[in-house]
Amino acid sequence: MTLVGCLGGGQLGRMLALAGLPLGLSFRFLDPTPDACAGEVGELVVGSFDDPIALRRLVDGAKVVTYEFENVPVGAAAAVTAVPGIGALEVGQDRLREKELLQRLGIPTARFGTLEDTGLPALVKTRRLGYDGKGQRRLDEPEPIGGDELAEQLVPFDRELSIVAVRGSDGETRFWPLGENVHRDGILRVTRAPALDAPQAEAEAIAAALLDELDYVGVLAVELFQVGGGLLANELAPRVHNTAHWTIDGARTSQFENHLRAILGWPLGSTDALGDSVMVNLVGGIPPLGELLALPHANVHLYGKSPRPGRKLGHVTLVGASEHEVELALALAAAAE
Amino acid sequence: MTLVGCLGGGQLGRMLALAGLPLGLSFRFLDPTPDACAGEVGELVVGSFDDPIALRRLVDGAKVVTYEFENVPVGAAAAVTAVPGIGALEVGQDRLREKELLQRLGIPTARFGTLEDTGLPALVKTRRLGYDGKGQRRLDEPEPIGGDELAEQLVPFDRELSIVAVRGSDGETRFWPLGENVHRDGILRVTRAPALDAPQAEAEAIAAALLDELDYVGVLAVELFQVGGGLLANELAPRVHNTAHWTIDGARTSQFENHLRAILGWPLGSTDALGDSVMVNLVGGIPPLGELLALPHANVHLYGKSPRPGRKLGHVTLVGASEHEVELALALAAAAE
Repeated sequence: MTLVGCLGGGQLGRMLALAGLPLGLSFRFLDPTPDACAGEVGELVVGSFDDPIALRRLVDGAKVVTYEFENVPVGAAAAVTAVPGIGALEVGQDRLREKELLQRLGIPTARFGTLEDTGLPALVKTRRLGYDGKGQRRLDEPEPIGGDELAEQLVPFDRELSIVAVRGSDGETRFWPLGENVHRDGILRVTRAPALDAPQAEAEAIAAALLDELDYVGVLAVELFQVGGGLLANELAPRVHNTAHWTIDGARTSQFENHLRAILGWPLGSTDALGDSVMVNLVGGIPPLGELLALPHANVHLYGKSPRPGRKLGHVTLVGASEHEVELALALAAAAE
Repeated sequence: MTLVGCLGGGQLGRMLALAGLPLGLSFRFLDPTPDACAGEVGELVVGSFDDPIALRRLVDGAKVVTYEFENVPVGAAAAVTAVPGIGALEVGQDRLREKELLQRLGIPTARFGTLEDTGLPALVKTRRLGYDGKGQRRLDEPEPIGGDELAEQLVPFDRELSIVAVRGSDGETRFWPLGENVHRDGILRVTRAPALDAPQAEAEAIAAALLDELDYVGVLAVELFQVGGGLLANELAPRVHNTAHWTIDGARTSQFENHLRAILGWPLGSTDALGDSVMVNLVGGIPPLGELLALPHANVHLYGKSPRPGRKLGHVTLVGASEHEVELALALAAAAE
């Protein structure tokens, strides 16, 4: 029995386990929350990420330890020799270091720095610990910004895309088709993949440069803005990512399975799409299950979390569905929110 | 949180849970074995099927209780008001009642009864508790047979097929495409689905007659012999079935998900095939995982059971693979046996 440890026990950890159990893997999660939803599919160690006893328990007998969100303390990841390594985590936790890395690799980004660097309007974001639009504000007039904040040029992009990639322990790299994402109130609502007429090669080059620079092992996501013909890198996430949840049903190998294959040193699986997928997040509330299941192309994924406004409770992926069926799914999600 | 109880905690229960967790379901299993492999994906009550305390614990708070093998005592199923109902279980447990039901419904079978009824050569089977070829012997010469045994004509069939169907609580019925099965030593080795040039309509009519007669709710499997152009019904299993494991990866909705949808009164999912599937059982031993995962179209499913000769430890389903890739998978399975 091969045991995988995971820092964090949310829905990403839960879906890692659901992908790994059929491969004969067992899971142990460390999470400060006693009702962390991954606890249903593995052992849950309830404790703080900087509790050495909890960390020792997490790592005990585990073949490898990974993490499912990027705000886990770097010290905790180092203590358990987490994969992906702490280099990616340090970059992913700090918007300034992230932007500087992109710049150093020659990857285009929106202008960033002070308001003088960016001009107005600008987005001001906390350098650390932001997610789902939290810790962000828009400035149209000059205003002092804090030392822990970073200004970014507000880019009038055509659309948001994301490239999700996996790199094996032998350096082999694979990419899923680009997803096109729609956010509302800073929260991802919909991903369509493969995105139509998407600059796949350009996006793969961006992800490949990051993966190689970080000597990365596992799944990495890069959010991109498409502006005219070009791409700007917005941010990266050193983990499985909401914009690739469609791969569970819509790709030959899911991001979750390939992340596990990578960190365990196993051969990577095919990232080919099986059709056109639309992933709809269920945020704040869950539609009546009978209505979701009546949609003939819907694959329903609930996370076992209690409803709360703005909380991601599940998602539905439709593969090969008509636009009419997609509209029905969107309407159900919106009505339940 | 909707809790589903299950009599039996083997791989079928485990795969039911893996299909049901994404639907927000939780699972509790009753099994006499402390290391029953479904215990990794739900609560395991260790106890005998006729222990009233264990049965009460199983049913406590459960919305519905089902069973994952047909040799569970009828009294236990009745005590927990299991779905499918005990009518199907009583028939599935007794080869004579099964054959008589088929006969009554006008469904062709091999001749059965005494050796006078069948002629020689014949298969003599225990009426009850046989599985995976256990409790069967071939007779070429007359020999006394026991009162708990049933003789069946040995049919020179062209191939073995199985029809797996699901019936909802509202009586709606759906069928997966026929699978073509290869057994060796009485143990299923390979299922190919959809079977080529298969008498789908005739098989569906057989399954539909049984489902309606039994007022059945859930997944039912019927094993068939194709002889010339016609079908003979061999046996039925009132549960999810090994010959439909391919539906996890190769059909829009798996047998496990549709069984849950049916017993919970939810709408049934599409049974359409997504391509040509080949399911290879891993019996007695598990091939090196790295070699299985290197097959580009292989979906690996391990059950978390310890190896033992003749024991089903997992399966691999290849969807849309070349015959060459299928041969590699078969060779890996054979070498590990």
